[in-house]
Amino acid sequence: MNKFPIAKSRRIRSTSFSERVEGHGVKAYTVYNHMLLPTFFTSLDEEYHHLKEHVQLWDVSVQREIEISGKDSSELVQLMTCRDLSNAKSGVCYYAPLVDLYGGLINDPLIYKLETNKWRVCIADSDVLLFAKGIAESRKLNVKIFEAKIDTLAVQGPKSLKIMEKVFGKKINDLKFFRFDFFEFNNIKYLISRSGYSKQGGYEIHIENLKAGLDLYDHFFEIGSEFNLKPGAPNLIERIEGGLLSYGNDMDIGDNPLECGFEKYVNLDSDIVFLGKENLKKIKKEGIKKKLMGVKIEGKSINLIKGLSMLNLNKDEIGELRSAAYSPKFKKIVGIAMIKKDFCIISEKFQIKLKNTTLTGEICNLPIL
Amino acid sequence: MNKFPIAKSRRIRSTSFSERVEGHGVKAYTVYNHMLLPTFFTSLDEEYHHLKEHVQLWDVSVQREIEISGKDSSELVQLMTCRDLSNAKSGVCYYAPLVDLYGGLINDPLIYKLETNKWRVCIADSDVLLFAKGIAESRKLNVKIFEAKIDTLAVQGPKSLKIMEKVFGKKINDLKFFRFDFFEFNNIKYLISRSGYSKQGGYEIHIENLKAGLDLYDHFFEIGSEFNLKPGAPNLIERIEGGLLSYGNDMDIGDNPLECGFEKYVNLDSDIVFLGKENLKKIKKEGIKKKLMGVKIEGKSINLIKGLSMLNLNKDEIGELRSAAYSPKFKKIVGIAMIKKDFCIISEKFQIKLKNTTLTGEICNLPIL
Repeated sequence: MNKFPIAKSRRIRSTSFSERVEGHGVKAYTVYNHMLLPTFFTSLDEEYHHLKEHVQLWDVSVQREIEISGKDSSELVQLMTCRDLSNAKSGVCYYAPLVDLYGGLINDPLIYKLETNKWRVCIADSDVLLFAKGIAESRKLNVKIFEAKIDTLAVQGPKSLKIMEKVFGKKINDLKFFRFDFFEFNNIKYLISRSGYSKQGGYEIHIENLKAGLDLYDHFFEIGSEFNLKPGAPNLIERIEGGLLSYGNDMDIGDNPLECGFEKYVNLDSDIVFLGKENLKKIKKEGIKKKLMGVKIEGKSINLIKGLSMLNLNKDEIGELRSAAYSPKFKKIVGIAMIKKDFCIISEKFQIKLKNTTLTGEICNLPIL
Repeated sequence: MNKFPIAKSRRIRSTSFSERVEGHGVKAYTVYNHMLLPTFFTSLDEEYHHLKEHVQLWDVSVQREIEISGKDSSELVQLMTCRDLSNAKSGVCYYAPLVDLYGGLINDPLIYKLETNKWRVCIADSDVLLFAKGIAESRKLNVKIFEAKIDTLAVQGPKSLKIMEKVFGKKINDLKFFRFDFFEFNNIKYLISRSGYSKQGGYEIHIENLKAGLDLYDHFFEIGSEFNLKPGAPNLIERIEGGLLSYGNDMDIGDNPLECGFEKYVNLDSDIVFLGKENLKKIKKEGIKKKLMGVKIEGKSINLIKGLSMLNLNKDEIGELRSAAYSPKFKKIVGIAMIKKDFCIISEKFQIKLKNTTLTGEICNLPIL
């Protein structure tokens, strides 16, 4: 595999922690929300094993937070998502697919209601700011919308509770999964959510005081050795096995939330108003035409850089492989694929033709067990 | 300077020509509209000189094209831009700042009117698709909006006319600056505009038949040696000298078009309707607070990865340097900076404090002459 360096500029934003992660030896970056996201420090494989046993600190500042406040903020937030947020409570993280008029996925953020008329939308990789502004400014809604100056550190792995307790005190034990609250370190208050892009448990620390955030980052590594803390990043292997979807990789505006397994976040029976409601009702009634599934593929390595066409044994095109990585657990390649509905059959065999080889695999459920 | 490889994935889209540019030895990429953009093949310096003397072929497929069609398409396109497009003609390329309600820059595309109810918006690096959908879908406009499957090759440099003539025939001579028309190669019709992100003259070929586009790409290099054709990319040095602005680098949503020197594309006296009209009127009346200017800085090299604060000799913060590169022509660093209005004085001196050194420079006009 050839390696191509990334050309940095003001447009490809660094985070508050970029110097730190480079000091820690980051090996590659991707770009996400116009910002640098580390991808690994040693190897995907080594960090996969470490993440499942110990604890890692990730710079996930690319999860930009769109703040929406004002009298009509609840109306605007609801217009964008098919999840019923009419009873949303402060302190809860709402995974909420954003959809367009046709039900196409715009983004899949976590939404936080901070107070009655103040929301934060922690986004995946698309300019939700522009979608929100387009709706609000043409409807003359009374809202203020901007990208908050917040950088985020994730503490992920089975030892995350222990290290968080050491830094933020025993009170962190009270924080339940997909809840957020405020915790102090060095007299600075941090919004912390029990969330993160791994299945190993963990927290996300939302940092508004970026200078204090650097001290916090350094403190983690000062006290981290007893927990075997290491720098890390969202791990491609672990997230595929866990069925954690990636917007832009596994799904995009050409897919709807019912096709992505988000049924429980598609609330069509309540009286909420959102752009895509009528079309999603129609789609639900008629039935979806394709669905995201897991796959297992014979092979030792794969470097997927675009969707790959999947053929069954009758040479029917049955779907598209969208993410893939070699799994040390299954000793196979695991992946996430968009499969035509008729072929969504567990253990259905398929082939993928590459330049110099043909891969064979079979369909399985997500998460991959 | 440390080099960090870019991690590719489906989300970081390759173009139709990525394999070709990698075969040609691309040395670095940036990401632009979720897609790979080559930055250079040999060195910025070598390609700067070559671009000014000969001709280059660039893969600028990242200039994604948002197609807007339907009965209300003209209304929607106008709602997004402060440029009066009420008399827009097919065949003309309109440079048109897109603005939000506050006059903040959303993007600075070239807009093409293909026919009465069909437009293409060739965008800089932000999701204009989502802005357009937000407006249209909440206003229930009768439009269809999608990102077209179009990849773009730019032919740039003083010999561009000659090589284009060889490929597309004498008729290309009739195409004037910032005009577009259709031309044939191998029985395939291409929309070609006389445009491009350099000051050396050139063309952009908008390719819908991506397979035919590969043949076209190869054909250019088959016949290119007599013109000293080389692969290239938008050149940081040349574009700064020429005052060609880069959205995300030189300006963003925090800036308005009057601050960026786009006065002639801000049509406040006509009766067009666009979101930011009232606020831009107010800004114009009150006067802008800052303005993009050129700078020349003593020094041999710079690697700008974020905005740099500029202080005058009284230690007042006078602005922010946003793009910079060493210019072989001026034997200095040249740059583009957002300067507070009171300090927009030609030859005004300033300093920029870096970790291990202090740079000194002075303000100049754009383009930098």
